[in-house]
Amino acid sequence: MVATRNPLNLGAAARAMANFGFSRLRVVNPYDVAFREARSAVGAAALLGAAETCATVADAVADCRLVVGTTSIGHRELQHPLRRLEYGARLILRALAQGPVGLLFGSEKFGLSNEDLSHCHWLMRIPTVSQDLSMNLGQAVALCLYELARDPKAVNARPAKVTPATAGQTEQITSLLVQALHDSGYLNPLTEASSEEKVRRMVKRFRITARDAPVVMGMMRQILWKLKE
Amino acid sequence: MVATRNPLNLGAAARAMANFGFSRLRVVNPYDVAFREARSAVGAAALLGAAETCATVADAVADCRLVVGTTSIGHRELQHPLRRLEYGARLILRALAQGPVGLLFGSEKFGLSNEDLSHCHWLMRIPTVSQDLSMNLGQAVALCLYELARDPKAVNARPAKVTPATAGQTEQITSLLVQALHDSGYLNPLTEASSEEKVRRMVKRFRITARDAPVVMGMMRQILWKLKE
Repeated sequence: MVATRNPLNLGAAARAMANFGFSRLRVVNPYDVAFREARSAVGAAALLGAAETCATVADAVADCRLVVGTTSIGHRELQHPLRRLEYGARLILRALAQGPVGLLFGSEKFGLSNEDLSHCHWLMRIPTVSQDLSMNLGQAVALCLYELARDPKAVNARPAKVTPATAGQTEQITSLLVQALHDSGYLNPLTEASSEEKVRRMVKRFRITARDAPVVMGMMRQILWKLKE
Repeated sequence: MVATRNPLNLGAAARAMANFGFSRLRVVNPYDVAFREARSAVGAAALLGAAETCATVADAVADCRLVVGTTSIGHRELQHPLRRLEYGARLILRALAQGPVGLLFGSEKFGLSNEDLSHCHWLMRIPTVSQDLSMNLGQAVALCLYELARDPKAVNARPAKVTPATAGQTEQITSLLVQALHDSGYLNPLTEASSEEKVRRMVKRFRITARDAPVVMGMMRQILWKLKE
């Protein structure tokens, strides 16, 4: 984090690091030296406390094999290859296998300076819809770390299935509903057989879960009891 | 945004919406009714100004075909299918083709209440490393919108290539460097021919760009001029 002005953003960056499993925070020349007390750093106090303060970008990236600068608006005189976050994150992951990688974030107002950029091998851009509206710094850090921690297989990972009710349970519910419809006079006695099939299909469409089935049956029985009264 | 306490988070949410091309913000029962002045909303003032204030979640989602709740820590008594952000975002994109989708974010302190959750078809979880540390609200909104706006093809999209120098330019640079090495006494006259090949291969490895080539040549010529003096 280079020349960050608002300590809240350092707190937000630390919190995002904790959220996505990153641990080494280096702070270059912060505007407010009391940043360790950043209040928004819920759960990230340890990370902020262990943050290293560096006087220059050169010091901060000295042990890095790869240094990547971030920008959300693009730089006017771009001397560096500019990569979209999705692609850049893949390159960073590959480089991490070979040694530490430094990811630089500039100040809220001015981003990274040309001097900062001269320490970078390339730049990474968050693909926002407009180049004119930069991102909030804390949000930009969160997005970059999320993309680095992202599991590409998760796009297809279906969640644990909800257990559906058994056919026996849905059939019981169907019977109870048919009974209630009969008792309430909703069903026409002449067409009751075909109506029962319609009700059965409708109940199936509700995809009642194993957990809800007994609750629904209890409700239906109570209604039936009242109808018989 | 349901029962948001800190207006800065509403500002951050609005800014992320502007960043990723979303426009309809509904605010349910905000803690601070003066949220429209949220200071962090750089570039999102129009969006905050147009935000609709609703008294209840039911009002806020009335026109939605699908309502999805967000959680970063998981809910103790989970009555809903819980989907990871990457997969959930795909489902939301598919549903958006059929009608409006509501994405609910709860308060900073308590998340969505059970009453709020009862309006949701399912829940979406941001995959953080620890379930114990929730995300900052503004960052969580940014991540969800980023994932919704994400172009899956961009992972493989290489950036526009930097134009490399022509072979003629690198050869000129090689000659200038060999000359400088010769003039400075670095090269052994007996092995100069094979050394020139080594220098040529090294200059090729530098992958000098078309833009940098004339600069390098200018530098070399200046050094040569000084060496001849």
